[in-house]
Amino acid sequence: MGSPQKPPLAHLFKGTFVHASRSSPMTVLHGHLLGVGDDGRIVFLEQADQQEQLAKKWGFKASDIRELSNHEFFMPGMVDTHIHAPQYAFAGSRIDLPLLEWLNTYTFPTEVKYKDNDFAEEVYTRVVRRTLKNGTTTACYFATIHTAASLLLAEIIDKFGQRAFVGKVCMDLNEFVPEYKESTDESVKETERFVRELLEKKSHISENDGEIKLVKQMFPAYKNYTDLYDKNKLLTSKTVMAHGCHLSDEELKLFSLRGAAIAHCPSSNFMLCSGILNIQNVLKHNVKIGLGTDVAGGYSASMLDAIRKSMSASTVFQINKVNETGLTLKEAFRLATLGGSQVLGLDAVIGNFEVGKEFDALLINPKASDSPFDLFAADTFEDIIQKFLYLGDDRNINEVYVAGKQVVPFSSSV
Amino acid sequence: MGSPQKPPLAHLFKGTFVHASRSSPMTVLHGHLLGVGDDGRIVFLEQADQQEQLAKKWGFKASDIRELSNHEFFMPGMVDTHIHAPQYAFAGSRIDLPLLEWLNTYTFPTEVKYKDNDFAEEVYTRVVRRTLKNGTTTACYFATIHTAASLLLAEIIDKFGQRAFVGKVCMDLNEFVPEYKESTDESVKETERFVRELLEKKSHISENDGEIKLVKQMFPAYKNYTDLYDKNKLLTSKTVMAHGCHLSDEELKLFSLRGAAIAHCPSSNFMLCSGILNIQNVLKHNVKIGLGTDVAGGYSASMLDAIRKSMSASTVFQINKVNETGLTLKEAFRLATLGGSQVLGLDAVIGNFEVGKEFDALLINPKASDSPFDLFAADTFEDIIQKFLYLGDDRNINEVYVAGKQVVPFSSSV
Repeated sequence: MGSPQKPPLAHLFKGTFVHASRSSPMTVLHGHLLGVGDDGRIVFLEQADQQEQLAKKWGFKASDIRELSNHEFFMPGMVDTHIHAPQYAFAGSRIDLPLLEWLNTYTFPTEVKYKDNDFAEEVYTRVVRRTLKNGTTTACYFATIHTAASLLLAEIIDKFGQRAFVGKVCMDLNEFVPEYKESTDESVKETERFVRELLEKKSHISENDGEIKLVKQMFPAYKNYTDLYDKNKLLTSKTVMAHGCHLSDEELKLFSLRGAAIAHCPSSNFMLCSGILNIQNVLKHNVKIGLGTDVAGGYSASMLDAIRKSMSASTVFQINKVNETGLTLKEAFRLATLGGSQVLGLDAVIGNFEVGKEFDALLINPKASDSPFDLFAADTFEDIIQKFLYLGDDRNINEVYVAGKQVVPFSSSV
Repeated sequence: MGSPQKPPLAHLFKGTFVHASRSSPMTVLHGHLLGVGDDGRIVFLEQADQQEQLAKKWGFKASDIRELSNHEFFMPGMVDTHIHAPQYAFAGSRIDLPLLEWLNTYTFPTEVKYKDNDFAEEVYTRVVRRTLKNGTTTACYFATIHTAASLLLAEIIDKFGQRAFVGKVCMDLNEFVPEYKESTDESVKETERFVRELLEKKSHISENDGEIKLVKQMFPAYKNYTDLYDKNKLLTSKTVMAHGCHLSDEELKLFSLRGAAIAHCPSSNFMLCSGILNIQNVLKHNVKIGLGTDVAGGYSASMLDAIRKSMSASTVFQINKVNETGLTLKEAFRLATLGGSQVLGLDAVIGNFEVGKEFDALLINPKASDSPFDLFAADTFEDIIQKFLYLGDDRNINEVYVAGKQVVPFSSSV
């Protein structure tokens, strides 16, 4: 007799797990046991006093358990809902112009270079390494109009083991950098070639005033920017719109109705002077929302920077007396993890440590050698988590897992 | 015959030097030679083609020159015009309340602990190490009301070789944490004991609305907050006032007239929802201004964070259509170096690489191993500087000099 043989566990951790749920922006589970199956899914997350029963059920020995140090914790991998991989080449420089001039002066002239696969390989390798090291386990990448380079990006992502969507850019209109566009026919043909199971509907909306005026001028028949997308069947539950700084309540209601999502990119909104998203108002309208780095309008490829900038952005509405309360750090943490998974339609698969989800996780070591912040005896565990979220960096992210597979530190084969 | 014997040079560098002046927010000097005398002062900064004449005049050989790598550069050490050393204990945590509640809930209960010298020694050692590693060669520290611990801070600073002002806090009014105050007599007596050559006039002004209302209520006879300081002879050319978010044009004119300075602390202004300083307006009024981290209202002890936050703060006024232009990254660089030296009345001594000033400098290595950003072949030197200012950290600050003495990497004796 006895229970049927379970498949062996891939990982078995004992320690602290920090994650978000729909009902709580941050839950800290001390003294828990988490098991990951061979298929990369979480098979249990239980209090450590259940060890004996779990050991019987899953057939493990006490010596199979990897015990975290007191100050270490696991958190879910972060989800970057909006990042332009080709622009990583100039991330941190050339951000001194408003959106439309910035595109024509810096962005399009850089993106046109991705017809060269060698250049693409160098930059794409670096951006995938950099984001993974900084805890981005899932990214929604924009590439360029070049099909070959865009497929190369997907290949590199696969090699490093990151979870990602890759979108080929479609552009049949570009009067400033005319060599960087396709004909409409080409665009459709090339996109059909590109879309296999990749996400097909991702774009930008209401990022800055100049852009909104331009759209009004080009498409006077539509009620507003959202209406333009909606009437053209581009506002669906699979839609991720970046920015949305200037969306009206009416437009937010339509977003909610269609199940469309917003990628909030506070760093680029500040840098390009695009506007500031009133996130409290978006949350009130029950619109799905996550965070994006928006490299290279945003200068940092780290989602920790997006968390910090989302706090500053939200504060502006308190200072301007538009909102009474701002985003809390815990809510920003939820946006960067569970929120992002909802935006990308992946919340049944990742976003937190619910049993059945795939184990996308970061092992955080707040006492890493060369850590960028200090801990003191009076620090509570909550203080430690806050210090990591405000001050930590890749030096504190000691291990990264995607679907149960350890991808950082990088294997010697990549 | 021959020229009289010059004293030997302490350092002789050849490479790129980046600094600010009154007329230019950032000048990049490639292929230059900089000599530092035995007294820590810069004795020359000349184009490298002057090497032969300089060698004759200063009696050095080509082999005495330390040549920087192509991508490396020296920049002036940064000046933190406002940092609360005791609050470093909780920097990065407990910043979820507006100013006055934050003081009563977190700050005063922490500061009261500095009656214990052991606690003070631990925190003060860490904050001095952390700021130096991050390129703060000069800091204007607030301590607590405790004379012994404040003197200990000065001792630790001296041991590590940082340049600093240390101000003992004076407080004869504290109804929320009554054990953390002095009588007025005690305060005067203890302060007299404390002030040797240390700066005597440093405070806060117009940080947030609640505070301004409180001041109005307590001192109804004064025209405004600035008038209160001015009539009490506390607004002088030695005065450094932190924040100033809500100063009127009339008050700014008085600041300019008195030669009083502002320590702009954008990180804490955001975090505590205090307000946002319109820096373009301050500059227009010709008021001396530098940057401060304002730890722990600001969560980061790094002046690079203050530079980045000052850019976001300035942008808000463009987005709100108050200003047409914002701070440039080069101007923020000047604020963090030369501006800070002006605020502290040290611009004859430090702030840039003018001959005769003391050599307070950071050797920046943008290609440091484990650097937090990537460089690509198309990057110009200006791009590299921008990437460092937006994305760099202590991993790129390989060496730190104060008055010609190398203080980072730390010597084994500290």
